[in-house]
Amino acid sequence: MTINIGIIGFGFIGHIHEQSLADRNQMKVIAICDIDSEKMNDSITKNVIKTTSVDELLKIKTIDTVIVSVFNDAHKEVVIKAAIAGKNIICEKPAAMNVSEFDEMMAVVNEKKVKFTVHQQRRLDNDFRTAKKVYEKKELGNIYTVQSKLYGLNGNMHDWHIYKKHGGGMLYDWGVHLIDQMLYMIDSKIISIFADVRNVINEEVDDYFKILLEFENGIMGEIELGTYYLTDKPHWFERHWFIGGDKGSMYSDGFIPEGKVVKTSRLLENVPGKTVMTASGPTRSFGTVADGILMTEELPVTNYNYQMFYDNYVNTLQGTDDFLVKQSEVRRVLSVMQAVRESGLKKESIKFKNGL
Amino acid sequence: MTINIGIIGFGFIGHIHEQSLADRNQMKVIAICDIDSEKMNDSITKNVIKTTSVDELLKIKTIDTVIVSVFNDAHKEVVIKAAIAGKNIICEKPAAMNVSEFDEMMAVVNEKKVKFTVHQQRRLDNDFRTAKKVYEKKELGNIYTVQSKLYGLNGNMHDWHIYKKHGGGMLYDWGVHLIDQMLYMIDSKIISIFADVRNVINEEVDDYFKILLEFENGIMGEIELGTYYLTDKPHWFERHWFIGGDKGSMYSDGFIPEGKVVKTSRLLENVPGKTVMTASGPTRSFGTVADGILMTEELPVTNYNYQMFYDNYVNTLQGTDDFLVKQSEVRRVLSVMQAVRESGLKKESIKFKNGL
Repeated sequence: MTINIGIIGFGFIGHIHEQSLADRNQMKVIAICDIDSEKMNDSITKNVIKTTSVDELLKIKTIDTVIVSVFNDAHKEVVIKAAIAGKNIICEKPAAMNVSEFDEMMAVVNEKKVKFTVHQQRRLDNDFRTAKKVYEKKELGNIYTVQSKLYGLNGNMHDWHIYKKHGGGMLYDWGVHLIDQMLYMIDSKIISIFADVRNVINEEVDDYFKILLEFENGIMGEIELGTYYLTDKPHWFERHWFIGGDKGSMYSDGFIPEGKVVKTSRLLENVPGKTVMTASGPTRSFGTVADGILMTEELPVTNYNYQMFYDNYVNTLQGTDDFLVKQSEVRRVLSVMQAVRESGLKKESIKFKNGL
Repeated sequence: MTINIGIIGFGFIGHIHEQSLADRNQMKVIAICDIDSEKMNDSITKNVIKTTSVDELLKIKTIDTVIVSVFNDAHKEVVIKAAIAGKNIICEKPAAMNVSEFDEMMAVVNEKKVKFTVHQQRRLDNDFRTAKKVYEKKELGNIYTVQSKLYGLNGNMHDWHIYKKHGGGMLYDWGVHLIDQMLYMIDSKIISIFADVRNVINEEVDDYFKILLEFENGIMGEIELGTYYLTDKPHWFERHWFIGGDKGSMYSDGFIPEGKVVKTSRLLENVPGKTVMTASGPTRSFGTVADGILMTEELPVTNYNYQMFYDNYVNTLQGTDDFLVKQSEVRRVLSVMQAVRESGLKKESIKFKNGL
């Protein structure tokens, strides 16, 4: 089976899809579309059909699946058109600007019985999978915090992501991945959300957020991203994870995760008045570490890659797998994002009586 | 002038006060008191009067000032007795278990016109003062986040701090310092508080908290402390600061702060589709840093020490200074701590209409 693909929206990520599919046997790009014809000049696909009209592309009968990689605010219109045209759909993230848009889209998608998934390929990032593996091994005891962070030095957003009306900003760009990863890792309902969402550098769109997701199982999931959040530490402008439990912690830095699982050989017995002298006076709880207390283990190794997203797509269409990224999961992530914005605006927590 | 001191409560911090005052000319410990007489065996002061009775100590006419370093839940009773006896008072932190206790105490203190301050000596820690100096220099532009963190590996609390009824737990022990530092640095009202407060290891008392203080001036102050929050990074079990602004950041690690002020030579211009290839695919905002963008500066140097707390005490009694730690400030910190506990219990943010 070869799945013929049309790419709608040939910007940054449209190009990436084309490159990613170039060497695959079972998925073949046969058409691309962008309202700006110049953007298609550097297509690498031989004999590809180029059009500036979505409708023209959707008329091509041999196309089985469209990849929707237009501006975020155009996802709804294009996905609905594609579903009506009977095309299966891989939609870029965020699938929609909000939950109600998504529901409108899914009504048509499900009525037309086309396949639909969202390109949340960062579920396949090894930094995430490493954290997830540690989480699932349950060797850290009762986990109380899962922290996922990403910092940049560019300040400004790029391309159309600087515009609010197109769905710009970091919450839509990377936030949707970071939230999706957290929800994919922690199998529990959310009972409350508190968020700080800001435009630090950018005029129209958010470029810093801290999100606290309190889960029913007792874990506080924390997500922090800033486009202008600087140190000179190694791997700073890459991904960071920290998981804390009552039997140990794990941390990792980098897209290729470097870190450790860290435990201790013992807890404090209740020795009265035992002090450690520090530069800021005596303390009983902090300061230098006595030999032999701290024990480290290597992080588990994972071996994922973003091509697995396409593998999963092919396998699902062949009936041997289910989509990695399901409609209900996408909808939940959008619900969380909406609550995050609401919390940020109101400067108060949002509670979910029956969990989210 | 020599100020004669009586120390009431001769546990860990009572001993520290005795040692700290040993070489001073203007403050002289002449009496100590503890309900457990054995605790006074290792007093280093020659000819010191020892008693197991607070009332006996307060009867000593030559005592000008008492240091109240009993369990937290006994501060109120001892402070009120001392005020009635006409003694000036240095009270250990937290001054009281809650705001209403504090108000009761201050009613008597102010009626009796005795001097009163609280031993928030960590206002003199150099890690804090370094962060404060960076903050005050205003070179980081508009600041959006001030983060103050402290992590331990012992898990359990120590001594009587394991008991809830005595005012145990880390919020009362170190939390009061971390909150006090934040309020002393950021001159703005608090408009909302969100907190996660937990017993991760300890049965009765809190040993992990994350506190978000949203200030009227736009800064989010964040405080995180855990007694079991592990990595093997240098200075991990010491103090950490991060301040982020739209013109740069600062970070420091350690009780002797090691870190940098970090800025960039430019912000991103809106180059479309410029990518950095990472181990997790292409990104436009994160990954490795091109040469020449990141610029670092040394942290300012500060030269404080905890003896300055006593200097300030002497100077204030001599009329040449005001107390470093004022009643109104102590009350505000206790109000914040109360809201922190309330937020942690309710799992929702606490808002202050007119600011706190």
